[in-house]
Amino acid sequence: MGKYVFGVDIGGTTVKMGFFEADGNLLDKWEIPTRTENKGEAILPDVAASIRQKMEEKGIDKSEVAGVGIGAPGPIDADGVVHVAVNLGWGVFNVNETLSNLLDGMYVKAGNDANVAALGEMWKGGGQGYKNMVAVTLGTGVGGGIIHNGEILSGAVGAGGEIGHIHVEDAEEESCNCKNKGCLEQYASATGIVRLAKRKLEKSSEETVLREGKLSAKSVFDAVKAGDQVAEQIAEQFGYYLGKGLALVAGVVNPEAFVIGGGVSKAGEVIFKYIKPYFEEYAFHAVRNAEFKLATLGNDAGIYGAAKMVLE
Amino acid sequence: MGKYVFGVDIGGTTVKMGFFEADGNLLDKWEIPTRTENKGEAILPDVAASIRQKMEEKGIDKSEVAGVGIGAPGPIDADGVVHVAVNLGWGVFNVNETLSNLLDGMYVKAGNDANVAALGEMWKGGGQGYKNMVAVTLGTGVGGGIIHNGEILSGAVGAGGEIGHIHVEDAEEESCNCKNKGCLEQYASATGIVRLAKRKLEKSSEETVLREGKLSAKSVFDAVKAGDQVAEQIAEQFGYYLGKGLALVAGVVNPEAFVIGGGVSKAGEVIFKYIKPYFEEYAFHAVRNAEFKLATLGNDAGIYGAAKMVLE
Repeated sequence: MGKYVFGVDIGGTTVKMGFFEADGNLLDKWEIPTRTENKGEAILPDVAASIRQKMEEKGIDKSEVAGVGIGAPGPIDADGVVHVAVNLGWGVFNVNETLSNLLDGMYVKAGNDANVAALGEMWKGGGQGYKNMVAVTLGTGVGGGIIHNGEILSGAVGAGGEIGHIHVEDAEEESCNCKNKGCLEQYASATGIVRLAKRKLEKSSEETVLREGKLSAKSVFDAVKAGDQVAEQIAEQFGYYLGKGLALVAGVVNPEAFVIGGGVSKAGEVIFKYIKPYFEEYAFHAVRNAEFKLATLGNDAGIYGAAKMVLE
Repeated sequence: MGKYVFGVDIGGTTVKMGFFEADGNLLDKWEIPTRTENKGEAILPDVAASIRQKMEEKGIDKSEVAGVGIGAPGPIDADGVVHVAVNLGWGVFNVNETLSNLLDGMYVKAGNDANVAALGEMWKGGGQGYKNMVAVTLGTGVGGGIIHNGEILSGAVGAGGEIGHIHVEDAEEESCNCKNKGCLEQYASATGIVRLAKRKLEKSSEETVLREGKLSAKSVFDAVKAGDQVAEQIAEQFGYYLGKGLALVAGVVNPEAFVIGGGVSKAGEVIFKYIKPYFEEYAFHAVRNAEFKLATLGNDAGIYGAAKMVLE
């Protein structure tokens, strides 16, 4: 096996790229724009050109490269076939074969970006030491990835670990982006926390710093840290839904740990104070021991995980 | 690898044993009693003695046996360590090593019985052709097993797939055996269906055959088949909870198929008519394509799956 590996994380606006040694040491990282026009047909050629350029720059030969791992925002199955990635304009085709053909047969392995990031956190981030874990990303939405015995659980069409749309509230009247009602994402994402906060502020007349300035997940948790009681009640609701949702997840896959990342997790370990009591209340006793950790790789989780996929 | 394999399924009262060819052809099956007294210390020696006796009877040598697979009712991790199996009296010890020592170092691989049965259904039962599936057993309780890429998802302590205790009803006031309230098992097991039926009969004054004779999951679905409207309403409730619960499961592991077994499934495909609409209502669109199949191996699923574990 070669001594180097490339990790590629394709996003809707930029492609993050990493050049690694096989032990996980990140030697270089850079970004290129994601050209989504014309059904995203330029994306993989752009990636291939950037990899060739980097190899030339570093003076390394194809024989020294173990391969290219790649994460992309869409359902990608275990064979590397993407089944429509809306944000990139992609339809259905085999990412592994297409990129490999653009790189003279170099080994390529593709996966769903959230799953790939989960693998990155296991390898070099907050999930180090665990072989069975669930990464949860609390950003604009709620994403996730499941690692089973050290490997990505991709599921039938790469939607394994896409826990943002599991149902956690029967009484919800607003629709989620997915058109269902009561999805985890409606309460536990950054957007969801703002929604909970707005509802709370409408109903309550209590004094709170949250009536000043712009509402965000950050402003809510900043207020929590400052002892604001209304903010604490909002955090309590967030914790109820996420704790209950993760109890469901634990009841299915019995992980050793949950590794929580994404913008909301920047509030730090304070979020666990609100999640854990509800997790413990709703989880079956046999799965209640799961640990809670913060993700540590931030936006680099994708390139680390992509590299790790090649090395498996 | 040897040409024969033993599959052992330890239950609370009997141990089912199967003698297979490596292609899955079942040559012989039999049972021995499960002696649970003295912390179940005789169980594995009894199993070993029965295997030796069968080998002698068939005139086969140790070198011809690939190994012994074993399923037991309790949390057993990927290394074969059982973490307290109440029904057998077992504490914490390594089943693989213990049984292997009793069989002159023969290869032994143990797993949780529900997970092992799931593997059996994938190999030779209702799940043939799928590599990512969830087996659901609707018996006295609700059990399950998850197969990911053809292998058992055991989870941190072997509780992977134990979906009977995921939370599906906030408004429940009665406690489940596990002490939580609103567990899937309270509605979708044979016992759960009887509970739903009793509630329905108390509240309703409609005419129904269910007021005569003994209530059971079978009597409810027999009445459904005969067009009894009250029974149909009970089946509708059963379908609501199970469909919603399996939508949660699909949102976590995105299976190709659910394979439904256990006593309740003897009603046949009619149960899908009640489960599927709710599954489709609650499942995220990316995971909604899961197929529903009936388990076909019945009580033999455990010995088949145990044998398959050895052959992996």
